[in-house]
Amino acid sequence: MTTRAEATFRPPVMEARRWLDAAAPPAGLPLLNVSQAAPVDPPPAALRDEMARLVTEVPEVHLYGPVLGLPELRGEIAERWSAAYGGAVAASQVAVTAGCNQAFCAAIAALTGEGDQVILPTPWYFNHKMWLDMSGVEAVPLSCDDELLPDPERAAALVTPRTRAIVLVTPNNPGGVEYPADVVAAFYHLAQERGLTLILDETYRDFDARPGPPHGLFGDPDWPRHLVHLYSFSKAFRLTGHRTGAMIAAEGTLAQAEKFLDTVAICAPQLGQHAALWGLRNLSQWLAGERAEILDRRAAIEEGAGPLARAGWRLTGVGAYFAYFEHPFAMPSDTLARRMVGDIGVLALPGTMFMPEADETGARHLRVAYANVDRDGIAELYRRLATLAYPLAETPPRG
Amino acid sequence: MTTRAEATFRPPVMEARRWLDAAAPPAGLPLLNVSQAAPVDPPPAALRDEMARLVTEVPEVHLYGPVLGLPELRGEIAERWSAAYGGAVAASQVAVTAGCNQAFCAAIAALTGEGDQVILPTPWYFNHKMWLDMSGVEAVPLSCDDELLPDPERAAALVTPRTRAIVLVTPNNPGGVEYPADVVAAFYHLAQERGLTLILDETYRDFDARPGPPHGLFGDPDWPRHLVHLYSFSKAFRLTGHRTGAMIAAEGTLAQAEKFLDTVAICAPQLGQHAALWGLRNLSQWLAGERAEILDRRAAIEEGAGPLARAGWRLTGVGAYFAYFEHPFAMPSDTLARRMVGDIGVLALPGTMFMPEADETGARHLRVAYANVDRDGIAELYRRLATLAYPLAETPPRG
Repeated sequence: MTTRAEATFRPPVMEARRWLDAAAPPAGLPLLNVSQAAPVDPPPAALRDEMARLVTEVPEVHLYGPVLGLPELRGEIAERWSAAYGGAVAASQVAVTAGCNQAFCAAIAALTGEGDQVILPTPWYFNHKMWLDMSGVEAVPLSCDDELLPDPERAAALVTPRTRAIVLVTPNNPGGVEYPADVVAAFYHLAQERGLTLILDETYRDFDARPGPPHGLFGDPDWPRHLVHLYSFSKAFRLTGHRTGAMIAAEGTLAQAEKFLDTVAICAPQLGQHAALWGLRNLSQWLAGERAEILDRRAAIEEGAGPLARAGWRLTGVGAYFAYFEHPFAMPSDTLARRMVGDIGVLALPGTMFMPEADETGARHLRVAYANVDRDGIAELYRRLATLAYPLAETPPRG
Repeated sequence: MTTRAEATFRPPVMEARRWLDAAAPPAGLPLLNVSQAAPVDPPPAALRDEMARLVTEVPEVHLYGPVLGLPELRGEIAERWSAAYGGAVAASQVAVTAGCNQAFCAAIAALTGEGDQVILPTPWYFNHKMWLDMSGVEAVPLSCDDELLPDPERAAALVTPRTRAIVLVTPNNPGGVEYPADVVAAFYHLAQERGLTLILDETYRDFDARPGPPHGLFGDPDWPRHLVHLYSFSKAFRLTGHRTGAMIAAEGTLAQAEKFLDTVAICAPQLGQHAALWGLRNLSQWLAGERAEILDRRAAIEEGAGPLARAGWRLTGVGAYFAYFEHPFAMPSDTLARRMVGDIGVLALPGTMFMPEADETGARHLRVAYANVDRDGIAELYRRLATLAYPLAETPPRG
């Protein structure tokens, strides 16, 4: 007998934390942790003050709320998203969830059943793969090209009568890549043509380097038939510990998701919802500053990638929180990642964690979540990577 | 195609809220809402002050924490549960979840797979049934007797090779009944004999009228092989909106549950965990007062049941937050419950919500969640119920 949970693997982030217990960084090299895609600082003081006021003065933040979220927050999201994407999103098409992972789980529960298939571009976000495994849904891997872009034509060839959805994460985790609007549109049209749903996870949207809306899908009045959009407040307002995300979908899909959310969560935590609402109304300027800082770090990653290329490393993708590197060594990336902890005091996640086991390209890659590392830290990261002197692979990196 | 969510029904509590939109209470009779099993007041001021301090001064409450919960809270629970139940619970056997519903979901994900069976005494807690439906697990109903007690011998007859677990909720939701320790022990022995897991949901434990531990199962050094215990901080410290619950199980079971929790939640909200920890260390006296108040309301329910019996009502079960009544009318309880909103301004949940459709006894019952209604309110509730003058059923209530 295999239980739902036995059908999948251990959480990779937990696995990586265990490596830290097994090996200490060398003396004099404090750990550079580029493994987790999460803010390490609390929300800005103004929001913390507001939260203190809320827990003291507003009884509702301690009580149950509606399963699909605080009506005011749903309305605020609808209004702002409509404006940002140049489309029409109604409050009744917005659900608030306990984080964006939960939004994904709810979408899958609403859209799929046992034995169905969902297409996931690889490298994939491992929690997506885990949830599909536990839901009895087959994750059909779609290999991205050398620039980490998924090809809609290749995806079309993978569609079967059991296919229910295609998942895109943009800006991408782990690859960092911002999918061009026409690539997103091509996947949307594929979903329309084949009667599928495009699940678009835009967790890292606020750190997209491009001006204006990243795609025009909400401009299609018919979007609710084929689009589910996912979002997280964890990164924008540093609310990770409060678990606040969102799902935008057809009312009928949300009515199905409501059953799942009622049962697994009852409601998203209330304080996070009130904080997200306050953030949307008061932190636009602050968020713009955060974005500028992340974009500056991205620039530092790009600047340093040239010199590191001389040591055989290739920057395959970069954007939002992530840089995805192809390493030059004759060892699989999970071995490399583990050795780097003890040898240079760097914790990064190996590409093997974002790939089906059968796909060997995972063994050549490393994900660096650079968002929490400032310019000096990024320089230090590059210095340490350059000192690695393991045997080189026979095939050099592509590109 | 049926999706996971389509495999189950709409959340009953949502359904009941829609009745309120459809019918207003009569003039002069403000709504008596006895439908939801949740505190309506915020936590005590001392805890709210502590929470304000936490969000202002403790950065960690805003960040991700370990999937299985704050180590200090896991340790505190282990210590207190060991003392309270006279057994041995280690911190590594405790997981903190985003509410007790989520603990149940995690237990089912860890213990069952597609096509398995789980035995649920009826009347059941509807979210349990919903989650089993959505997990592809068959809920096998076990009819309770006239006193709402489940019979271990009847349960034994329902065990098949696909049975993985038996669920008991004590004190019971919806029935209120506190299961005698020997009944709980008999189910535990059944689980041992047949290689099953007993899932014991003790959400309402803190309002049990009996002195001392409600069962001795943790006293068996072998308990991790066959017992999973579930708990909620929502009722004890009025933390519903913060989503904090717990699951106590074998380390191996928690390692499986960890995959589910990582994917569906990443972690339980941090503020609720810190608040629960502070509550465990500082609110014992306050909680004792809460319990005394609830027990006084229970007494008021019992006192009023005698007079109401003359109008044909039978109090089938009472305890913790709930009274379970058999009504005397010639109409199914869901019709009755809906009519009561407009006719006497009372919202209670019908027995049909806690029963398989095929079981007609659900049509004869109503659940009254009296925990939020004081003695005056309970007197008023009884006055209103006594005014109902619908046609009587041909068969009078049992007992």
